Amino acid sequence: MVICLNGNGKKDDVWSMKDYRCRARLIGIVAGGNIIVLNEQEAMAHDIYPSHRVILRCRGKEIIAKVDLSSDIVGFGEIGLFTEIAKELKASESEIIDVKHMARPASLQYVKDKIEGKELNAEQIEVVIDDLMENKLSEPELAAFIAAMHIRGLTHNEIIALTNSIVKSGDVLNLGKSPIMDKHCVGGVAGNRTTMLLVPIVAAAGLYIPKTSSRSITSAAGTADTMEVLAPVTFELEEMRKIVLKTNGCIAWGGAMNLAAADDKLIKIRHPLSLDPRGVLLASILAKKKSVGAQYAVIDIPIGRGAKIMDTAAAQALGNDFISLGKKLGIVIEVLITDGSDPIGNGVGPGLECRDVFEVLEGGGPMDLRDKSCLLAGTMLEMCGKVEKGRGYTAASEIIKSGKALVKFREIIAMQGGNSKVKSSDLPIGQCVHKVIAQKTGRISHVDNKMISNVARAAGAPLDRGAGVYLHCEMGDKVVAGDTLFEIYAESESKLDFALKALEVWEPVELQKVVLGNLK
Amino acid sequence: MVICLNGNGKKDDVWSMKDYRCRARLIGIVAGGNIIVLNEQEAMAHDIYPSHRVILRCRGKEIIAKVDLSSDIVGFGEIGLFTEIAKELKASESEIIDVKHMARPASLQYVKDKIEGKELNAEQIEVVIDDLMENKLSEPELAAFIAAMHIRGLTHNEIIALTNSIVKSGDVLNLGKSPIMDKHCVGGVAGNRTTMLLVPIVAAAGLYIPKTSSRSITSAAGTADTMEVLAPVTFELEEMRKIVLKTNGCIAWGGAMNLAAADDKLIKIRHPLSLDPRGVLLASILAKKKSVGAQYAVIDIPIGRGAKIMDTAAAQALGNDFISLGKKLGIVIEVLITDGSDPIGNGVGPGLECRDVFEVLEGGGPMDLRDKSCLLAGTMLEMCGKVEKGRGYTAASEIIKSGKALVKFREIIAMQGGNSKVKSSDLPIGQCVHKVIAQKTGRISHVDNKMISNVARAAGAPLDRGAGVYLHCEMGDKVVAGDTLFEIYAESESKLDFALKALEVWEPVELQKVVLGNLK
Repeated sequence: MVICLNGNGKKDDVWSMKDYRCRARLIGIVAGGNIIVLNEQEAMAHDIYPSHRVILRCRGKEIIAKVDLSSDIVGFGEIGLFTEIAKELKASESEIIDVKHMARPASLQYVKDKIEGKELNAEQIEVVIDDLMENKLSEPELAAFIAAMHIRGLTHNEIIALTNSIVKSGDVLNLGKSPIMDKHCVGGVAGNRTTMLLVPIVAAAGLYIPKTSSRSITSAAGTADTMEVLAPVTFELEEMRKIVLKTNGCIAWGGAMNLAAADDKLIKIRHPLSLDPRGVLLASILAKKKSVGAQYAVIDIPIGRGAKIMDTAAAQALGNDFISLGKKLGIVIEVLITDGSDPIGNGVGPGLECRDVFEVLEGGGPMDLRDKSCLLAGTMLEMCGKVEKGRGYTAASEIIKSGKALVKFREIIAMQGGNSKVKSSDLPIGQCVHKVIAQKTGRISHVDNKMISNVARAAGAPLDRGAGVYLHCEMGDKVVAGDTLFEIYAESESKLDFALKALEVWEPVELQKVVLGNLK
Repeated sequence: MVICLNGNGKKDDVWSMKDYRCRARLIGIVAGGNIIVLNEQEAMAHDIYPSHRVILRCRGKEIIAKVDLSSDIVGFGEIGLFTEIAKELKASESEIIDVKHMARPASLQYVKDKIEGKELNAEQIEVVIDDLMENKLSEPELAAFIAAMHIRGLTHNEIIALTNSIVKSGDVLNLGKSPIMDKHCVGGVAGNRTTMLLVPIVAAAGLYIPKTSSRSITSAAGTADTMEVLAPVTFELEEMRKIVLKTNGCIAWGGAMNLAAADDKLIKIRHPLSLDPRGVLLASILAKKKSVGAQYAVIDIPIGRGAKIMDTAAAQALGNDFISLGKKLGIVIEVLITDGSDPIGNGVGPGLECRDVFEVLEGGGPMDLRDKSCLLAGTMLEMCGKVEKGRGYTAASEIIKSGKALVKFREIIAMQGGNSKVKSSDLPIGQCVHKVIAQKTGRISHVDNKMISNVARAAGAPLDRGAGVYLHCEMGDKVVAGDTLFEIYAESESKLDFALKALEVWEPVELQKVVLGNLK
């Protein structure tokens, strides 16, 4: 590569001899990345091979893309653009595109440094995140980087630097108000829609809570999916700002906004690898909080069988990191270590979870969901001094009992564009139902989050809003043969069949074990 | 995913409900991997997303492929097959293909174990290589694995296990003769066509040397490229066997045979990352030697400025590893640490290198090329006891002087299907020439391998057989202003221009520095 000859890193404005021009051919395929197709002979004559990265220039805009080659689809002087890149370049058919060799990204040296165990400084981390945002690092390079951060670890300084760089990579919410509260749950618990309760509680108390939530990746529903049953969750940052200024709170889909943008790119690699290097996890979460201007945040770490964090010691260590890092980043953090071994609430799936939420707001509902929400909301009330230490839970409870939380919730729904008068009977609940009956008498020793989640997904959640599982028992309950353990809801018979097949895959003995435990 | 519900790893012969059938649509694009296109809506309804991996079944054959999605190119019930996978499945247009979710590969656990620093046993390494061969591991997963092996290191037992698994992944040459010699150069030196001399020398002495060589990846020519000027280098394993049984030796392109197949897949990830974990490098090389049944091997480790290994201590450590691992694998190894700071020979590029080779075989030629080849060949003669210790170099020299090496070389050329009567004047040498002239009087302090290589490539090597560089000076030479330092050869004026532009990118001062050094 000629550009490499300029080893001293001099920026080369003269087109390398290997650069050339092409006319765009639009290919209507979603490729999952910025990929283009070049004519095989022409590319190789220019020393360009499959999977190489090149810089494309179109009407002054430059973008990096990965190369596919073809002898048939594109001829000499042509370049095939897959969907994503055609959109990003705003290129039309036959438009002139310049193809240019890409110099080795500066960040690659820092990736190698981290592989070799060096501590990266803030400037170097900034370069890595910049190159990440410009797609200069390939998936394998990013994977090697993630693995290296996992094995070598990140120092507190590196985590702070990473957090700040991730924040800078996206937009930041400037509410101009105070106090701004936030919450994060490390995850792994089915149901668990505490956000949809603590937001109205805390907002009703006069605190600001611009809450962004995610859609489900592998679970039966994310908070954004469940909230979307009641109101739109897709907003621009400025729209979210207006909603929160009017109502104090909102529950929006984070993915629609450009907050902590680099984190989305990192998650794309972390998730398939199931590698969440501790430092990256911390930076990821803290960056999201910082991006909305949070001054106080409650971190919920569920532990126990089936939860993401296995034991108290690990949870405490993680929690301490959150607290000390938060301090350096200007966020006051409190950590709650909660029971993550069972689902929270009865419903699992968007419509069914909404039903739980309304029941709690109306004064009843699943007790575990109500208690946990009051605990989280109460902690927030105490943290910013709204309420005396020790009185948070009671204050939160009172806000529910008085009906203020329900009023605020309806206000938020309306502000987000939903029907504020929505009733429980309006909620989408699948019409095809199957009751799973206890085969024996005994006591429930465990309700497996994963199984419940999987069955709910198989039934169609979250795309089918009314699909999911509704639990009629919980850990510790005594059941008699013939009692309903849980119901499966689906929006069609065939999907109900899917869910039943999913259930069948668990050995009947296994099923009893996981649900009924030892007979007592 | 329903398959995941069967957490106890029970093999599920029943089609998951998310499996479905499609008709093949052939897409004539080389994608650089096994990639297919599914209809976006249909795939997502089956919980399949871009970059997911699925198992395709076609007429009983199963293959793993990565997913692209499209709303336009393929409709419901259709699957688009890129070139590689259409070939592998031998699928025709409209053929029925079953699309099946893929369970998590067993090797992923071992990838994570290595990330966590565990030592893998032979069975586990075997599983990883098996899954690698079946494309069950994605590029990011492989990259994480390579990074982990680099950071955590591999024990000798792991390297042995990896070597054996790589050998098993491909074919093995059973020559049925003895002694079988081999050689490997760790690389980084331009020119350096010692193989094309030591093979005929050693074969003429009655030893067997089934030599496989590679094509250039980033250099101006690989041994396979240069040999191909004289004769075909692409053979099936059985053809190579026949050639070697007739002539004792050959110089074939390793990539055409299925030797150490897993190594090719590993190189695809190692190379872009520029990560060659020591243990993987050792296993890679030893597996290739073992695959051809080598009993004796000489490893050439060039050191010095610009070479891959920087200093003697590093070379010795690597060399010791080769020797002790080789012993455990049944290969007697000797290591030569040689001077890698300058190109070897005068020609750089296929035709020009052939010219050097013939000149040496005819009794003259570049002295450094002749000396190094006799050193390597002589070592081989000593190792298997053909010649007394200390007399190898002389014996090799004699074989050249007597003309026996040239006769043998022509015999090998003929057996490989080339013209045994080929003369130096028949060799392809580019007709467009540019002389690079010394601007000052002085002494050559250094000739940079990388620059020479880059200029030769820019001139068109190795695809243009006659392109390259011919050196007229070497380190230590005194030159006078006006002397020719080197010539650039190309097969067209435009390519010669390319090469000159490449040369220009080096600052004139830089150029003098790298070629002329300090004025003495």
